[in-house]
Amino acid sequence: MTDPPWLAEAQATAFGLAALPYGVFTRDGARPRVGVRLGDAVLDLAPVAESLAPDVVRMYDQPALNSLMGAGPGVWAQQREQVTEWLSASHHVDVVAPHLHPLDAVTMTLPFQVGDYVDFYSSRHHAENLGAMFRPGQPALTPNWLHLPIGYHGRSGTLVPSGKPIVRPCGQSATPDRPAPVFSPSARLDIEAEVGFVVGVPSPLGHRVPADDFARHVFGVVLVNDWSARDLQAWENVPLGPFLGKSFATSVSTWVTPLAALQHARVGPPRRVLPLLPYLQDREPWGLDITMRVALNGTVLSRPRFRDMYWTPAQQLAHMTVNGASLRTGDLFASGTVSGPAPDERGSLIELTWNGREPVKLGDGRTRTFLEDGDEVVITATAPGAPGSVVGLGEVRGVIRPALDR
Amino acid sequence: MTDPPWLAEAQATAFGLAALPYGVFTRDGARPRVGVRLGDAVLDLAPVAESLAPDVVRMYDQPALNSLMGAGPGVWAQQREQVTEWLSASHHVDVVAPHLHPLDAVTMTLPFQVGDYVDFYSSRHHAENLGAMFRPGQPALTPNWLHLPIGYHGRSGTLVPSGKPIVRPCGQSATPDRPAPVFSPSARLDIEAEVGFVVGVPSPLGHRVPADDFARHVFGVVLVNDWSARDLQAWENVPLGPFLGKSFATSVSTWVTPLAALQHARVGPPRRVLPLLPYLQDREPWGLDITMRVALNGTVLSRPRFRDMYWTPAQQLAHMTVNGASLRTGDLFASGTVSGPAPDERGSLIELTWNGREPVKLGDGRTRTFLEDGDEVVITATAPGAPGSVVGLGEVRGVIRPALDR
Repeated sequence: MTDPPWLAEAQATAFGLAALPYGVFTRDGARPRVGVRLGDAVLDLAPVAESLAPDVVRMYDQPALNSLMGAGPGVWAQQREQVTEWLSASHHVDVVAPHLHPLDAVTMTLPFQVGDYVDFYSSRHHAENLGAMFRPGQPALTPNWLHLPIGYHGRSGTLVPSGKPIVRPCGQSATPDRPAPVFSPSARLDIEAEVGFVVGVPSPLGHRVPADDFARHVFGVVLVNDWSARDLQAWENVPLGPFLGKSFATSVSTWVTPLAALQHARVGPPRRVLPLLPYLQDREPWGLDITMRVALNGTVLSRPRFRDMYWTPAQQLAHMTVNGASLRTGDLFASGTVSGPAPDERGSLIELTWNGREPVKLGDGRTRTFLEDGDEVVITATAPGAPGSVVGLGEVRGVIRPALDR
Repeated sequence: MTDPPWLAEAQATAFGLAALPYGVFTRDGARPRVGVRLGDAVLDLAPVAESLAPDVVRMYDQPALNSLMGAGPGVWAQQREQVTEWLSASHHVDVVAPHLHPLDAVTMTLPFQVGDYVDFYSSRHHAENLGAMFRPGQPALTPNWLHLPIGYHGRSGTLVPSGKPIVRPCGQSATPDRPAPVFSPSARLDIEAEVGFVVGVPSPLGHRVPADDFARHVFGVVLVNDWSARDLQAWENVPLGPFLGKSFATSVSTWVTPLAALQHARVGPPRRVLPLLPYLQDREPWGLDITMRVALNGTVLSRPRFRDMYWTPAQQLAHMTVNGASLRTGDLFASGTVSGPAPDERGSLIELTWNGREPVKLGDGRTRTFLEDGDEVVITATAPGAPGSVVGLGEVRGVIRPALDR
């Protein structure tokens, strides 16, 4: 018995058997299908299942992960085990080899059909940084912040897959010294480095999902870049929150990392400053030791750590449904900007440049406050796997295109 | 030649040939299909088309209006003409009669598959009433209000069809004299009487939809009750806007009135107080002379008029897409609470009772500030049709059920 020929090389990457994220790809104009990533290749699952597990062909011969995601934790675990065997057992090599395609020979698409998209605001450091910038002399946190994970609904129709260029948005903005608004391309285009959670198992209207049921509903994790036009946002934000400043595009990674791949990354949340209402008290730790890397035109600007988030995704889920709101397969909820206590752990330019006052230096000697046309932002992340292994999360990448005339 | 036997009676209602709203119904356990309403009956369109227009059977043999809505204004006009003929020409009676079912023999469902749901805040009277209540001594409108139609994204997964009971939501609330939040069923459950606009024709990401293209994209109109838990909303609202106070349920009418039925209701918008940026200047008048009627347990509380709205739906559409946000078939955008200048033209209890201080009287002598369990709210509306005719909009109805323990 020898290992399959592809295994050693893949195991040396952050996308070895410990990771195995799912995605949806097209190749040679064929219709999109579900694949799993190993190293720098994707395994086309439907034709392999055709030979080895005909029962699940229909789940993989799909243009989205929703069928797999809706099948629930039992199927998720069993399929992960089965796919691991397909990729690692020498006796499957003849069946598997023809369907393992190099990533550069395929096109990845948005991996799931999105239901609702909710964006939280769960980093205390991020909230305090913005509070200090915009409400100097007042408490950095609003009175509710330590009692509940603040969130709002975003536009699910403008979620785009990693790699899709972002057109600079136009809109209204105004400043205190120029109170009549002007219309122009955004001059303060920013990023927000976030971690997103994708719902697999739905819940009925009128019923709460307890925090401890997190893993019964959430299928996996994506990286998110919540592009933000700060000038548009500042003008429109009061009284009903972000709207056009966010709704022009939100990029998500094309790979969804199953929760099972992050078992070794689970950590307790930061110490709570105030007592929590019972529905937010989680017995199972759902902090995650994910370290992100935010790069602008190849220069790493920061390394935010998700473990520093005050509110865990399990608490976010419990809060989002405590009023009886239902969940659908494909709902996405993101963490909000991941920012840590150190300056080089901030997940947005507005924090990294302190509202544009302290430009960041790029590797080519140039500087940035906010994004310029042609800039490319790449967010990557890793988490600890089983001892000795690392789990990579699929990157989220986007380049800025100039605003359109119409 | 005589009229079909059903016509005279139907023409005497607000759902005669001038209205003809579309919906989706089930009957005797059959799968849901598209129907059109005439009087108190629904015409099952697929089997009629089978005999008279086989090309369009597929558009009607659907569990949602999306296929029809996505087909565009040419098809909408042509189908409306064809359906009018089916229902009014005596030579089609034998084909049509077997497929015209009384409304009380069918069950109506949510009429379209929802993309994104956006809720605006377009009544100046509503915004000023809330400003006066919550920011006394300050300007009633925020500085941006007269420059753009304020809006936010709501939860599309909890849109429910008229008639579905509403479970009272639970959540956190706090008051200035009790700053630590408590968890309880909402004690200030309210309504918001709104008019919603359903997108038919999509638009690509990165491109704006001009206000004057309104009728090229919007298929029709629904009535909306945007249930609101005022206590939850007040605590969570700053800094990112409404979330759980709104996301537990939003009711929409099961009938979608095509824009063509409202041609005679078109009016110019109210006079603009401040000059508008070019993208919000609409040459075609898209104010609509729709008069709503809000009834609580059978007592009519108010008659808001949609023509009093400061921002028209065409301006809302232009604003929503000016940042390049795309539209999908099934996107719904609602007007926000429709409130007029007079006290009996207010579309929410918080306004009608002036924040609970002036209870409204019901017909049975009892009073209300906010909704009690068992209360039923029915919102109906009419608009002028061709001279001498009235166009009814499908009602939106909902009864409050007690909060659940879990």
